[in-house]
Amino acid sequence: MVTPVPAAQVTRYEAEVDVLVVGYGCAGAAAAYEAAIAGSEVLVLERASGPGGSSAQSGGELYLGGGTPVQTACGFTDDADNMFAFLQAALGPHADEAKLRLYCDGSVEHFEWFVGCGVRFTESLYDAPSWMPPTTDGLMWLGENAWPYDTLARPVPRGHRPATEGWAGHTLMDALTTAADTAGARTVTDTRATALIVEDGRVVGVTARRYGADVAYRARRGVVLTTGGFVDNEEMLADHAPDLLGHGKVSDGLDDGSGIRMAAALGAATRRMGFVEAAYTALPAMVCRGMLVNGLGRRFINEDVYPGLFSHAALHQPGPCWVIVDEQGLDEVPARDRWGVRPTHGAETLAELEGDLGLPAGSLAETVATYNRHAEGGQDLLFHKNPRWLRPLEAPFAAVDPRYGFGGSAQPVGTGFSGFTLGGLHTSVDGEVLSVAGEPIPGLYAAGRAASGIHGAGYISGTSLGDGTFFGRRAGRALAGS
Amino acid sequence: MVTPVPAAQVTRYEAEVDVLVVGYGCAGAAAAYEAAIAGSEVLVLERASGPGGSSAQSGGELYLGGGTPVQTACGFTDDADNMFAFLQAALGPHADEAKLRLYCDGSVEHFEWFVGCGVRFTESLYDAPSWMPPTTDGLMWLGENAWPYDTLARPVPRGHRPATEGWAGHTLMDALTTAADTAGARTVTDTRATALIVEDGRVVGVTARRYGADVAYRARRGVVLTTGGFVDNEEMLADHAPDLLGHGKVSDGLDDGSGIRMAAALGAATRRMGFVEAAYTALPAMVCRGMLVNGLGRRFINEDVYPGLFSHAALHQPGPCWVIVDEQGLDEVPARDRWGVRPTHGAETLAELEGDLGLPAGSLAETVATYNRHAEGGQDLLFHKNPRWLRPLEAPFAAVDPRYGFGGSAQPVGTGFSGFTLGGLHTSVDGEVLSVAGEPIPGLYAAGRAASGIHGAGYISGTSLGDGTFFGRRAGRALAGS
Repeated sequence: MVTPVPAAQVTRYEAEVDVLVVGYGCAGAAAAYEAAIAGSEVLVLERASGPGGSSAQSGGELYLGGGTPVQTACGFTDDADNMFAFLQAALGPHADEAKLRLYCDGSVEHFEWFVGCGVRFTESLYDAPSWMPPTTDGLMWLGENAWPYDTLARPVPRGHRPATEGWAGHTLMDALTTAADTAGARTVTDTRATALIVEDGRVVGVTARRYGADVAYRARRGVVLTTGGFVDNEEMLADHAPDLLGHGKVSDGLDDGSGIRMAAALGAATRRMGFVEAAYTALPAMVCRGMLVNGLGRRFINEDVYPGLFSHAALHQPGPCWVIVDEQGLDEVPARDRWGVRPTHGAETLAELEGDLGLPAGSLAETVATYNRHAEGGQDLLFHKNPRWLRPLEAPFAAVDPRYGFGGSAQPVGTGFSGFTLGGLHTSVDGEVLSVAGEPIPGLYAAGRAASGIHGAGYISGTSLGDGTFFGRRAGRALAGS
Repeated sequence: MVTPVPAAQVTRYEAEVDVLVVGYGCAGAAAAYEAAIAGSEVLVLERASGPGGSSAQSGGELYLGGGTPVQTACGFTDDADNMFAFLQAALGPHADEAKLRLYCDGSVEHFEWFVGCGVRFTESLYDAPSWMPPTTDGLMWLGENAWPYDTLARPVPRGHRPATEGWAGHTLMDALTTAADTAGARTVTDTRATALIVEDGRVVGVTARRYGADVAYRARRGVVLTTGGFVDNEEMLADHAPDLLGHGKVSDGLDDGSGIRMAAALGAATRRMGFVEAAYTALPAMVCRGMLVNGLGRRFINEDVYPGLFSHAALHQPGPCWVIVDEQGLDEVPARDRWGVRPTHGAETLAELEGDLGLPAGSLAETVATYNRHAEGGQDLLFHKNPRWLRPLEAPFAAVDPRYGFGGSAQPVGTGFSGFTLGGLHTSVDGEVLSVAGEPIPGLYAAGRAASGIHGAGYISGTSLGDGTFFGRRAGRALAGS
């Protein structure tokens, strides 16, 4: 069904507008807003019964910096170069330098755009490791203060959060879709785009299914694909990103790669289709107070990095991995940062724990002895964990199986990873979809996780909503002016 | 230049044949042979001035088994299931089970096909770790006897080699192209295919550049793309397999992904474009006698695995990696397995070596102490290296920087890795190229490294020539019968 349809075969259009946006997540809202505010007639097609997509189901973090008012109010000084230096390393190797440069240079303006759309940020810092603060604090660290990133850029927190306790994706998307609607964008829901309509080598619309009927929509200036990634499409995962097969999902079945396939069927190029975010359901507040070990009982990273990065490192370790803590460490995890996670094993000695976890005899004892020796000296000589989290571990010990997930699951949850895809259509910095020959395909744009964005092999919270909205806006502006 | 050309725009064809094969490496030769022997009129287009491609520059190993005459003569009993069990693990995770099943079930017949084409195999085993035997022995181990593979399948050697000392790719390709030519396939050299010609949704030929002129060739039954991978195309590497950027190459500039791009421009699907083989220029005969350590001075794998696998593991370790040996180990490496590789560092103590290599103080001492303790007990409790290679290491010690490469280089050679790409066009088991919609594209076939074959994320020598010829033959037969 993804094969392009010649315009000559289309007999009737439900509507004809300047700009057709396919998918009403964050990138679609940003594109729709900018095109509409520039005076274009905009229609957003959304396959669900309402707007939001995966963006609305997310934590709502936005990776922003360079000196935003929230950073300044919290006492931090930042600039675009400093932000670039951190992200180039943390999203790497192989971050997209051209897109990243624009993203960092435009970050303060992008913050102001969110404020203009009605997103509110509390000017306070949540100063503890967490996947997501349970407070309304507007700023959080996302690993900027962990080695080696603290040696590559001046450590400044850049995790910006809408003023909501916990999951803030809905808050964010309510603001953005309201802003787009107010700017004049119209929406048609329950309408799933099926193929691109092509005329003389130009994309002029899409076909769609709507309540069981085949319909078509025409676009005078162009189509923006903001249909999301492909984590919900097992066949595409098997073909392009098998690391995520069998893992948990962060989406709700909607990220089926439809936009990527519609465009690829027309000869569009894709990029970095194997790159993924794969996150452990392990608690940063617990992990940093103890250690993360692999199936050989060895540490392999400083546990205070952004938890997506310690998770990603675990993908390449001999498994299974375990979080090892002692009683004092467990006690020190603030109740609000526990998320229902409980130790799966407890033991009076490391030898006992090695036996329970199936680790090589003596391996954990050796790892803890080295760790404790370094902790006593005040320096993690292997992985440079911040001394704030360094303390000799003492019996009794506990282990947490990351597969048990948040909320105190009684059963392992898949592999313990959940994630999403980072690869997608190859786009210019203005969202033009490039063909395999490297030329823009007339009338076709993409943004958000349907496209390959600023990311290399790494990932930091807030960079997907951040990049989706930033380049969604650029695509909307480019189309309105095209 | 890769955009498909409508047949209506082509005014003249240089030739019209049944089957057009694009690229005269091993997959092209296999396809051409089978199509020709089945009675089809076959023309092979080759961009170089003669046949061979990357296949001719390779070591010429063929991964074959299931009970070949060479295996039997050397005293080994094998079967297809045993071969499948090994390859599923060694080429995994995510090997293509359907293709792999056919490959293993057909392996003895495929061996006989090579013999029929005039490839000779000496019925003797080279029983030492090596990238490539300097003898004419016809059989070699490729990690089948290393942990954990020896626990998953009965260990049997399956590396088959044409009777040539050292690099045997030319020997192999001389035989295959002679067989294809004798079967009736014609060849046009110095002719670089540029785009597919399409008529009514069917591929009916290719356009090409020949001595500066644009020419066209027509195919009545179809076109087989056997144009190789894309390791020589830096832009495609950046887009799909950045792990190989800046690394050494095993090809000669010809693997530029042209066939993959020509087909993708028509809406063909690709698969596993990020999967690569990346091999260290480290000597198996030296590594297995000592240890391979990462930038923390730690071992991370049993050093007797197939060297492509210890190399691949090194890609995910904190670098730089080092080969550590002692004097006795160095002395024991047979002269014929040294390939000019020399230690880059020597030291009387491990502390001195740690300092010279920039490893954390005490790290190498701890690693060697554990290793020696296990060696004295006769068991590598961490990585299960075969006891044959286990012996306590004693001063004086030496280290080899894998970046210095073979032949005693005086300067580091890139990153020390060289490799090639494993991803490519998504094909059926008969070589039909599938569209993004999952349907065969009429008239279009592919095999060899222009296609995604039996491989998952792993690689074993001989599986690329093996899969290229096996599925090249299937494509040729399918086309002849289509």
